[in-house]
Order: sequence, then C-alpha cells, then structure tokens
Amino acid sequence: MRPKPLEAVRTSMAVLQFALEGACPQSAARAGRITTDHGEIVTPIFMPVGTVGSVKAVTQQQLKQDVGAQIILGNTYHLYLRPGLEVLEKAGGLHRFNGWDRPILTDSGGYQVFSLSGTRKIKEEGVVFQSHIDGSRHLFSPEKVMDIQRSIGGDIIMAFDECPPYPSDHAYANKSMHLTHRWLDRCWEHFHETPDKYGYTQNLFPIVQGSVFPDLRKASCAYVAGKGAVGNAIGGLSVGEPEQEMYDICQLCCEALPVDRPRYLMGVGTPWNILECIALGVDMFDCVLPTRNGRNAMLFTSKGVINIDNKKWEMDFSPIDDGIDCAVSNYYSKAYLRHLIKAKEILGLTIASVHNLAFYLHLVGEARKHILQGDFVSWKREQVELLKTRL
Amino acid sequence: MRPKPLEAVRTSMAVLQFALEGACPQSAARAGRITTDHGEIVTPIFMPVGTVGSVKAVTQQQLKQDVGAQIILGNTYHLYLRPGLEVLEKAGGLHRFNGWDRPILTDSGGYQVFSLSGTRKIKEEGVVFQSHIDGSRHLFSPEKVMDIQRSIGGDIIMAFDECPPYPSDHAYANKSMHLTHRWLDRCWEHFHETPDKYGYTQNLFPIVQGSVFPDLRKASCAYVAGKGAVGNAIGGLSVGEPEQEMYDICQLCCEALPVDRPRYLMGVGTPWNILECIALGVDMFDCVLPTRNGRNAMLFTSKGVINIDNKKWEMDFSPIDDGIDCAVSNYYSKAYLRHLIKAKEILGLTIASVHNLAFYLHLVGEARKHILQGDFVSWKREQVELLKTRL
Ligand SMILES: [Zn+2]
Ligand SMILES: [Zn+2]
Repeated sequence: MRPKPLEAVRTSMAVLQFALEGACPQSAARAGRITTDHGEIVTPIFMPVGTVGSVKAVTQQQLKQDVGAQIILGNTYHLYLRPGLEVLEKAGGLHRFNGWDRPILTDSGGYQVFSLSGTRKIKEEGVVFQSHIDGSRHLFSPEKVMDIQRSIGGDIIMAFDECPPYPSDHAYANKSMHLTHRWLDRCWEHFHETPDKYGYTQNLFPIVQGSVFPDLRKASCAYVAGKGAVGNAIGGLSVGEPEQEMYDICQLCCEALPVDRPRYLMGVGTPWNILECIALGVDMFDCVLPTRNGRNAMLFTSKGVINIDNKKWEMDFSPIDDGIDCAVSNYYSKAYLRHLIKAKEILGLTIASVHNLAFYLHLVGEARKHILQGDFVSWKREQVELLKTRL
Repeated sequence: MRPKPLEAVRTSMAVLQFALEGACPQSAARAGRITTDHGEIVTPIFMPVGTVGSVKAVTQQQLKQDVGAQIILGNTYHLYLRPGLEVLEKAGGLHRFNGWDRPILTDSGGYQVFSLSGTRKIKEEGVVFQSHIDGSRHLFSPEKVMDIQRSIGGDIIMAFDECPPYPSDHAYANKSMHLTHRWLDRCWEHFHETPDKYGYTQNLFPIVQGSVFPDLRKASCAYVAGKGAVGNAIGGLSVGEPEQEMYDICQLCCEALPVDRPRYLMGVGTPWNILECIALGVDMFDCVLPTRNGRNAMLFTSKGVINIDNKKWEMDFSPIDDGIDCAVSNYYSKAYLRHLIKAKEILGLTIASVHNLAFYLHLVGEARKHILQGDFVSWKREQVELLKTRL
C-alpha cells in the first residue's frame, strides 16, 4: 500500500509543461493542464496547504477520495525544523515520507520567517531567525533555501523573497523588491547548478513583489518574466490591503506575466477572491482559509457561508452540502457537525476541513468547466453573490 | 449517501439473537454470531467507544473501511448532556444522527456519573450529579436512564448499576450490589413497559457487580441470570484490582452466566487482557485504551507495544504495522506517524487511533479464527507473550 517506486509510475522525466486548453472570451480566465513528473494538474487549481507534511486533520486518502486534491503544499520553514532534512532525505523526499504521490509545491519559508514575532534580521545575505520550537538560531539564504527545497523534494519550489508588510511606503517596497530580485538571481543560479535529488524534475518559480505600487509591480513582473521560468508567482498580496487593491495589482501582474506559463497567486483567499482572480488570469491558488476557518466552525458551501456554531443548525439534519460531489459533505448533517464542533471533538475538525477543501476543489473545477463552456463570466457573477451569502 | 431509511435495509424486526458457532476444546472460549436489527456481529468482538456519538478522531467511513468495526458504543452521560435528547429524538435516534448504520450499544451513564469529581449523591431513588459542562444538576434514576437510552436508540442498552470503587470492603460491596439489583428490577420493569422508539428492537443487558468478592459475584450472577435477558454484562472489573484478580472474577462470572447468551465484559482492556478473557468465555469487549493510548503515542501492534514518541522510530520508514489488514496501518510509516505526533498534528491522532482500533479488531478476528480452527489456546499463549513485548 506504500507508493510504488517512482520508476514504476513515471514513463519519462521532464520539466514542468503547461498546455492552455481553453480561454474565456470575456475575461482573462483560462483553463490549462500542468504536467509534472508526479502527474497532471488541471487548472485553475486550488492547492491545500500541508504545513508540516500533513494537511491539518485530513488523511492522504481523504485528500484523494473526498477532497479531490491534485497537488498539495509543504511549508519549508516547518519541514526544515521538523522532521528536519536528515529524516526527509533518508525517507527519499517528502512524497515518500508522507505517502502523497501526486505533485507537491513547497514555499520558500520566507513568509513564515518574516511572520515570526521574535528576533529576525533581514540582511543582504539572507534572514537570521529563531525557531518557534526551541529558540535555536538559523540562517535562510537564497542558496540555503534552494538546498532545503531540493532536500524536501517538491515538484515546484519557490524562490526566496521578502514579502513586505502592508502598508509599506514606496521607498521600503522598492528597496525590498530589489532585494527580492537579487535573491532571485542567487536562487536561480544555485538552483541551476544543483541536481534533482530523487530522480524526478524539480521546477523553480520566481515571485513578483512590489507591494501595492503599480510601477514596482510592473518592474518586478518584467524582472521575473526575464528569467523565462516554467511558471511564475505573484506574492505579497492578501496581506491586509483592500480587496479592490488586491484585484487591481493581480490584474496588472497577470497582464505583465507570460501568457504561456502558469500564474500562481500566493495565499489567496476566499471563494469569491478565487473566482475574481481566475477571471484576471490566475491559474494556481493556495490558502489556509478553508482548513483554518473550518477548524473555527466557518464553512464555505455551494449555498453560502455557514457558521456551524450557530444555534440555528442545532436541528438541521440536512447534509452539510449536497451541492458538491464529496462523500463527507453529503454524508454528515449540519446538526451532527455542529454537535461535534460544540463538543470539541477532533472528528468535527476533520469533517469541517475535508468539506471546506472539497468545496474549494469543487469551485475551481466548476470554474474550469464554465471557462471551457464559454459562460464563465456570467456564471462567476452569480456565484460571487451566492458564495458571500451568510446562511 | 445518508443511511437508507431503516425499513429499506431490514427485512424483519426481532430481539437480539445469539448463535454459538464454535467452541475451544481446551478453554471456555467460543465463537458466536449476534443478530440485531442493524445487522450481525461476529464474536468475540471489540466495540470502539464513541463517547459523544463519534469515536474520537475517527470517521464513520474509517470505522467501516479501515478499522472493520461491527458495533460501536455511545456514552449515555455525554449524549444526554450534549447534543441532548431533543436533538437525538428529532434526528430519529443516534444512528441517524451520526450516520452509523451498524449496531450501537449505549452504557447506562452510571460509570461516568460515579467518576465525576464534584458533588454526586447516591440515593435509593438514583444519583444526583452536576454536569461537567455547566454545573447544572441532574438526576439519573433507573427509569430515567431507560428513557434516555430509549431516546438515544442503541440496539443494546445497559441497566443502571453502581460500580463500586476498588478497593471496597465486603460490607460496602454487598450493600452496593443489592442496590444494583433493586435498580435492575426497576430498569427491567420500566424497559418492558416502554416501547421501542424508532421501529427497531432495543435489548436490555443487566450487569453483574460484587467487586472482587466471589460470594457476592456468585449471588449477583444468579440474580442477573434470573432475568433471562438476551445478553449479560460483567461490570466493576478493570478498576484497579490486580490482573489475576480480574481474571479470577471474570472466570467465576462466565461460569455462572448462561452459556447461550453473549457475555459482555465492560471496560477491558489491554490486548492480552482481551485474549485471556476470551479464553474464560467473554464474547464482547469495550475499552477506551486503543483510542486514548493512541492519542498518547502508544501503539499496539502485531509485533508488540510501540511508544511512537521514541527517538528510535525517527528514521524507521517501515509501515506502522504490516501484520494486519488495515490500509492506514500499512500505508503510513512509523517515522511519519512519529513526526506527526511530535508536531502535535491532528492527523497523528487520527492515524494512531485508526491503527490501534484496527489492531484490536484484527486481534478478536484472529481469536475467532483460532477458536473455529481448534488451536486457540496454543495461539493465545504465543500471542500474549508477543503482544506484551516492548519494541
Ligand atoms: Zn541559489
Ligand atoms: Zn425502569
């Protein structure tokens, strides 16, 4: 029952491929297909976050069967500290360690490191920080972060960047963006002078920064596009800026980044954020919202938002969501899930997480269908209204 | 995906049946088959404990597919307080509330109530206690507890008894046993004058008490047997007495209780306890040990006991247990589970709980096989040694 040796499941090894399969006539939305050595991903796609090698409260079996996840994330910061690189390397990489045999993307660890409340120092060389577990001191440099992500073994790995806080003034955002570009050069070089570690191809995505300043974002997109990477990411959004500002910057970036490469918008967002950003040309999303909010009793459903803590669900024996194709959402009732959450039962966290993730995967799947059908924009308009409804 | 209406899955309604299918030539072990309106249970059987309507950290799908559970428990005390009887009745009983369509057994709530540290008072009428949730005062009487279990809707329900602490002196144990017998009379009468609530048959099991005193246990077995119930339970063991004393009393009770009715030993125990008590003639077991200990990093496996917290498993990428037929135990490695438990990931609690329960179900299944094969005693001797091994 362990994943088969990689040799047995893969016919060829190649860098990531992206094929465009359809485009919306009225927006920048597109449907595509990414091919990696661990299999295909159809886009637009949402990627569940598997912080320390586990999507919180969800088994790998549930991810496949109930959620329909095609690719998951791993957090470099967390995995570097625990279980650590020695364990991951001895295991043969994260896929073999956690038994997830579909694609994995790892972040660069930068975002977590900058979020650490304790002492962390940004220098040209990199970032010195203290572990949240034992206070030990560590350095993340562009080279080190490439090496770490080589050891973790994600199919897609991310450049080491600085994500400036919101709000930042133009001078700071500019300085930070240039640091991110210099770090990108070092990542790019180090990545290309180090081999794949586990017999399949890893792919490096650079990250656009520049806060909410159009001139900086344009400059950053040009710099990033110049690398000719197989995919590109938009970072530094959904960090507190108004929603419209996020959409405006996202649009600017999508228009400036290569059309024939997947665009990954990092850390976004609500279901309606995702639909709006698909319309702007984003192909890949990740966010902790579905799992974190699920654990806090907030459900995203095909009929709107539910606070399952609320007394009104106490006697509602209808399924959590019969509008999506998920055995868990169809099976358990709102009243039962409410009971589990009120009683602080672990099973409640699992059911809420599985449901919310399944809903996100359902949503991007529907978006893809409507892009291919040609009626994405009118469908999206209806959905955004509906999804925001508080039930 | 919700369970079908009961009418659709059941061909007839009847009181619990017990058929003996095999007996060990060298011990009192036997293999049997219990039939209820929610399906069959092959014995000897272990019943996972589903405290508030959920087996902690385990989905109903995992209980069926990975654990192979045939019947689960519900705790009357917990379910009475939360979600409460109004919700359970409106749902149509616990089966429909939690989506578990196989048999359910509910305890009487007595054990939990006596364990409450706060003010609780035992009187002839019943027990007055305070909720651990909000401190509210409640009375459990034999009649009330029958009514509550009618509302929860277990296929097997338990008489309201007093479980005396260990050690108790003979005088107290004697007094307590007689109270349990008087309560049994009241339960029996009330049970038989109240109808089944949800269209299927509920079955009342009386409970033998008498602490560790053979004379009291004999008297209690005689009293209990006199009711002619469809099944009988042995309570008040595994409460702190030496293991040999538990076995001695268990043997005495098995010999004194009807041979043609299932015998249920409440709250026992370790894997070796279960094998020893099967040899004495016990058919049904329940215990929180596999789930509680699993959440605390202790695994019972086909090769012995594992403390998965231990450093020695850090680089052990072999399956948790490849000696049992459980997709979860076969799939995840010891190193991965150790990592999850160290990182306090919820998924670690789920995997450990699923594995331990699957192992318990595997163990009783193997016991049954060896009873039917005729080599139970020699198999058990080997197993007891093996299962106690600290790996
Ligand atoms: Zn580098
Ligand atoms: Zn009664």
